[in-house]
Amino acid sequence: MRIRLVNPNTTASMTAAVQQCAEKVAGPQTIVEAVTATMGPASIESHYDEALAVPGLLAEIARGEAEGVDGYVVACFGDPGLYAARELACGPVVGIAEAAMRTASHLGRGFSVVTTLGRSVGQTWDLADRYGMRRFCRGVHPTGIPVLGLEDPAVRSEIAAACRAAAAADDSDAIVLGCAGMADFCAYLTAECGMPVVDGVVAATLAVQSLVTMGLRKSGRGEFARPPAKEYTGLLSDYALTEPGVEGDRR
Amino acid sequence: MRIRLVNPNTTASMTAAVQQCAEKVAGPQTIVEAVTATMGPASIESHYDEALAVPGLLAEIARGEAEGVDGYVVACFGDPGLYAARELACGPVVGIAEAAMRTASHLGRGFSVVTTLGRSVGQTWDLADRYGMRRFCRGVHPTGIPVLGLEDPAVRSEIAAACRAAAAADDSDAIVLGCAGMADFCAYLTAECGMPVVDGVVAATLAVQSLVTMGLRKSGRGEFARPPAKEYTGLLSDYALTEPGVEGDRR
Amino acid sequence: MRIRLVNPNTTASMTAAVQQCAEKVAGPQTIVEAVTATMGPASIESHYDEALAVPGLLAEIARGEAEGVDGYVVACFGDPGLYAARELACGPVVGIAEAAMRTASHLGRGFSVVTTLGRSVGQTWDLADRYGMRRFCRGVHPTGIPVLGLEDPAVRSEIAAACRAAAAADDSDAIVLGCAGMADFCAYLTAECGMPVVDGVVAATLAVQSLVTMGLRKSGRGEFARPPAKEYTGLLSDYALTEPGVEGDRR
Amino acid sequence: MRIRLVNPNTTASMTAAVQQCAEKVAGPQTIVEAVTATMGPASIESHYDEALAVPGLLAEIARGEAEGVDGYVVACFGDPGLYAARELACGPVVGIAEAAMRTASHLGRGFSVVTTLGRSVGQTWDLADRYGMRRFCRGVHPTGIPVLGLEDPAVRSEIAAACRAAAAADDSDAIVLGCAGMADFCAYLTAECGMPVVDGVVAATLAVQSLVTMGLRKSGRGEFARPPAKEYTGLLSDYALTEPGVEGDRR
Amino acid sequence: MRIRLVNPNTTASMTAAVQQCAEKVAGPQTIVEAVTATMGPASIESHYDEALAVPGLLAEIARGEAEGVDGYVVACFGDPGLYAARELACGPVVGIAEAAMRTASHLGRGFSVVTTLGRSVGQTWDLADRYGMRRFCRGVHPTGIPVLGLEDPAVRSEIAAACRAAAAADDSDAIVLGCAGMADFCAYLTAECGMPVVDGVVAATLAVQSLVTMGLRKSGRGEFARPPAKEYTGLLSDYALTEPGVEGDRR
Amino acid sequence: MRIRLVNPNTTASMTAAVQQCAEKVAGPQTIVEAVTATMGPASIESHYDEALAVPGLLAEIARGEAEGVDGYVVACFGDPGLYAARELACGPVVGIAEAAMRTASHLGRGFSVVTTLGRSVGQTWDLADRYGMRRFCRGVHPTGIPVLGLEDPAVRSEIAAACRAAAAADDSDAIVLGCAGMADFCAYLTAECGMPVVDGVVAATLAVQSLVTMGLRKSGRGEFARPPAKEYTGLLSDYALTEPGVEGDRR
Repeated sequence: MRIRLVNPNTTASMTAAVQQCAEKVAGPQTIVEAVTATMGPASIESHYDEALAVPGLLAEIARGEAEGVDGYVVACFGDPGLYAARELACGPVVGIAEAAMRTASHLGRGFSVVTTLGRSVGQTWDLADRYGMRRFCRGVHPTGIPVLGLEDPAVRSEIAAACRAAAAADDSDAIVLGCAGMADFCAYLTAECGMPVVDGVVAATLAVQSLVTMGLRKSGRGEFARPPAKEYTGLLSDYALTEPGVEGDRR
Repeated sequence: MRIRLVNPNTTASMTAAVQQCAEKVAGPQTIVEAVTATMGPASIESHYDEALAVPGLLAEIARGEAEGVDGYVVACFGDPGLYAARELACGPVVGIAEAAMRTASHLGRGFSVVTTLGRSVGQTWDLADRYGMRRFCRGVHPTGIPVLGLEDPAVRSEIAAACRAAAAADDSDAIVLGCAGMADFCAYLTAECGMPVVDGVVAATLAVQSLVTMGLRKSGRGEFARPPAKEYTGLLSDYALTEPGVEGDRR
Repeated sequence: MRIRLVNPNTTASMTAAVQQCAEKVAGPQTIVEAVTATMGPASIESHYDEALAVPGLLAEIARGEAEGVDGYVVACFGDPGLYAARELACGPVVGIAEAAMRTASHLGRGFSVVTTLGRSVGQTWDLADRYGMRRFCRGVHPTGIPVLGLEDPAVRSEIAAACRAAAAADDSDAIVLGCAGMADFCAYLTAECGMPVVDGVVAATLAVQSLVTMGLRKSGRGEFARPPAKEYTGLLSDYALTEPGVEGDRR
Repeated sequence: MRIRLVNPNTTASMTAAVQQCAEKVAGPQTIVEAVTATMGPASIESHYDEALAVPGLLAEIARGEAEGVDGYVVACFGDPGLYAARELACGPVVGIAEAAMRTASHLGRGFSVVTTLGRSVGQTWDLADRYGMRRFCRGVHPTGIPVLGLEDPAVRSEIAAACRAAAAADDSDAIVLGCAGMADFCAYLTAECGMPVVDGVVAATLAVQSLVTMGLRKSGRGEFARPPAKEYTGLLSDYALTEPGVEGDRR
Repeated sequence: MRIRLVNPNTTASMTAAVQQCAEKVAGPQTIVEAVTATMGPASIESHYDEALAVPGLLAEIARGEAEGVDGYVVACFGDPGLYAARELACGPVVGIAEAAMRTASHLGRGFSVVTTLGRSVGQTWDLADRYGMRRFCRGVHPTGIPVLGLEDPAVRSEIAAACRAAAAADDSDAIVLGCAGMADFCAYLTAECGMPVVDGVVAATLAVQSLVTMGLRKSGRGEFARPPAKEYTGLLSDYALTEPGVEGDRR
Repeated sequence: MRIRLVNPNTTASMTAAVQQCAEKVAGPQTIVEAVTATMGPASIESHYDEALAVPGLLAEIARGEAEGVDGYVVACFGDPGLYAARELACGPVVGIAEAAMRTASHLGRGFSVVTTLGRSVGQTWDLADRYGMRRFCRGVHPTGIPVLGLEDPAVRSEIAAACRAAAAADDSDAIVLGCAGMADFCAYLTAECGMPVVDGVVAATLAVQSLVTMGLRKSGRGEFARPPAKEYTGLLSDYALTEPGVEGDRR
């Protein structure tokens, strides 16, 4: 089984860290391949960044489909382009926010998300809504550390403090790490905080592995069917799909 | 006052129709300018299409900012890129789904959305949630007519029939047209159906006009502040913002 | 186009202030007429006051209908009698809470309401629910200033402080003014608080103007159809409608 | 213990029927007194009717307070003026929709409301929301029979058919009668339908009796405290309260 | 009329206290009989305790049915086994959390629950959801006093302080006592706190009395119909029902 | 890694089937052990059955803890005793409804549950609420086939027809099988229905395997901490815990 993790930002060092985390948990028959988007912003910290990272992500999904990949992880906590990727891929596509939140919801009555910049708080709540996780999500706590600031291991203790403060404020049962860049702090934070800390990169890798093992993939009809072919103009013309696709008008 | 309507698909005839509709309702001091995205798909009928239409939309917002535009309408019923556009623009940005649903909610207890393909139904419900309109949205009814099929005036009567059927099934007080391409059918459908029919293109134009008149625009802090500058790689590098921006860490 | 603002309390100085605010934003073809209810309490600060203000409001709507008014604003933040007024009027009727909340929801992810007495807090949350605005309403903050206390300009700085405190406590993107009596403080408060401040009087005036421009009015069937004729007893007998009306039994 | 049932419409025959139903269930120490509003519409079938019935209702509450009544039932399924009455009265005030829905929620997972005209459906849903009963309310089914049409016993079988159809359509566990005028059909309908049928008049009478027995009444602080005194103008001037009241600014 | 209160823990002193409280409010024709479960834990303070208390409770319901009891109160604030008891009994079965929350919801806009251990907080919110009372439940406040610690009257003042603190923190209109063991503190706490304090034991007793008076009981079809007969193995074999029962497949 | 599946009914043939399904998906390092409760009903089809099955389930969890089991699956679609089991076990405990619903929510916008008797429909909706899955659960469809009737392979085609009908009625993207007894029909139903069919037995086995792999277990504090020790009376006295436990009063 081949699972591809797509890092939708263009920072290769984050991709390498993500690969390492995922490999540790994947089963012996699973090949984990993390790839870096070849176009877009160096980190994703706004709706604008996210919008411009998605084409690069979709290019990797298209490449993966050509190469026979079995399932995908979108390795950015905003789960950018998840629905578009799901339309494009035959196998399962799971976002790390989606997987982390659902995993944490098995562990108790509520979790706290500890994340990077304050401007992403609103979107995290939107994701909690989208995945039915609002009743479990007790708080979203920005640290003010930018995504690329996580490359510095010295911020680990600052994040640990934020996790402890979040758990106390929210009376929560688990911490969800709100950025793929925090994945390799997970063991450290678990030890420091004395409570479950959920990293979405490993959670999503295992979720995809489980879905592929069960032979489950999106429905071929309706909203997530392959998109209809369309003419394209300008810079992104290579994205035009040429097969007829499925209109998805099952109603 | 200059209001720019951005058609995020690349079909110029739809832009022209939208311009005409908006001009009819705008006040005497308002200049309405509809523009067509210069890159992306010819119509938006999937999450994939939407993701690839957004860069073209954002290029138009950036151009509008350079030209001193006062406010923007995103003229596609999925409201693609709305939050990213709101980060980029100083003045208000309103989506046509957002405006149509809020307008319809003044008219009674519930509305029905009549739209194009069945695969967009799920997203329309997501938008209703996002705007707090789920309690007013009683049903989303696809006609199976593709977006570009709306260029043919012969489909008008088919859509009228769908509107009547939707209102009967949902016991609703108003119809919301679920595609910018239906804007110029609005008067016809109102007459045919004998009930209020809301077109988001004119609703959003008037909403932007009202917001500019009141001097209201997004908060300069937090989630919708100008995005932080970021390095870009590859095809979309022209989108890199160079000003420092605002981190938005108000918490 | 004639828009009538009905002040449902009997304090004429508030009517004059409201007229002035609305005139500033109305388009050149719009005639704004603010009127004072001729019966009822001097201010509305309880469910009891509200119940007894509604007949006076409805008398003004009936008079407006006789005079050919195109649309109405209910100029009290509790939106008293809104549904009854909507039954009676042919054109649109918009409440200032309704308009203010919906306007603020275009500006960001959440707003704070700053209002008069604590006893109105519960009702404000009810209105947020009714209009689908609970997800945007982050807090309702009473100042303890009675409605007629707003006639004293010296309270402006106290309200500015309350707005700043509310925005900080709620991490909100905009302030909604929770009383028609605050309408003429709006520019001052915007300047003092450095964030969007929404006054429902101007928001509702523009909402009605937009609805009339679009030719949109309530559905003629169902809940908001003209009420059935009814025999009346006693003091309020002049309110009896004599036309047959519509039973509204569309189901 | 004295419990007063206020019929807020001006039709005395309905008051007599309501008195009879309530007497049958009240305890031996309870005196039930049903009274008819002395002003307002003959029946309540619109928001307009309701608004104009409330002053008559409040006059009866004020009279009851002067006479030492222990608790009140608002005997109309729209629960008109409930909150205002609760401000005015020292003892408990319960609406028949409130009591009927809460009673039905003890009997199973869902109930169906069978009511009079279709135009009241929306308001019934609003009441279900207000009382937290939406998860139990599975449907609201108008019969098209006007309120005063219920005076004719011949409509009983038509209502029985509507109850059976509603229960089948909603897969519900109980029927809630959506009009005080249906109170005396309750035993007949129970027998005809073979399932629990809840009449709000007896449910509310017993709810008030229970509250008085437990010594429970509204809080004296906050939203439902006695309204502040206020100057009144015109026709309704007798409603002016002269005691200072309570501002309710407990925050 | 015979109402049986079942104390599902095995502490007889709590049963005696509960009996006394219920007798004070029951009507002259009502016989109140409190009984103690004959097997299970001495107090219920975890999901584990609750699961193991339910068989003892159900044995008492079965005995009550054999003895012709008219209705039941489950006298533990977690409402353990309520749905199973409802299947088994012909007459109404009401839990004390259910009754207390619904009673408090008649008294104002929000209540605070004051309870024993922190580990029961989550379940109390679940009950609020189940009964549609989340909009009324403003907070759940553990005192840290174990259930059997309530036998000591000295804790009364500590609980009074917790009630006052809860009401202030939540701006609530009433207190709900979150344990049957607090029932006999109710008068004291009302006096100390100066606001309505609701004890579920008396509330549920009166709710059952009202339901029996109205002749209302669960529907005989569907979810709460008598359970189907089933073979049993091992320690609990006496619980096997031998009558055929009702499959409840009304869909 | 040892994962124990507990079949909480006493029918050993169902346990064998469940073991076989789980073994097929478990990783090479995972030992799957399915066990049958030694006391309780032969199948679980009512709240009553469920209440009396839970002690047998908890006995198996206690035995598993003594034997060093790493994680547990509750192999009955009502997820009986899940929270109590979670208190007792050190490692993760996952219910099959919980796992099936969360798995299906990765596959599209909505799923339909196809289940056994109509009387379990209400509880399935409760579970959907509890897990945040209501927005994904579009319908619950009973077949009327009792649990033990699933032992007959001839019912497979009847269930396939129910799945197809459910998907059509709900316009859903996946089917969730609503009974552990359907686990071995999953491949057949997938082939027959041409859409994803999710069996909770394998989904929960993989969820537990993933949680153990990630080192994630419930928080040791609060609601799901080990229950406090307690004295027991009567038949179930062996369940008394003797260690002090944790009060969980972290607030």
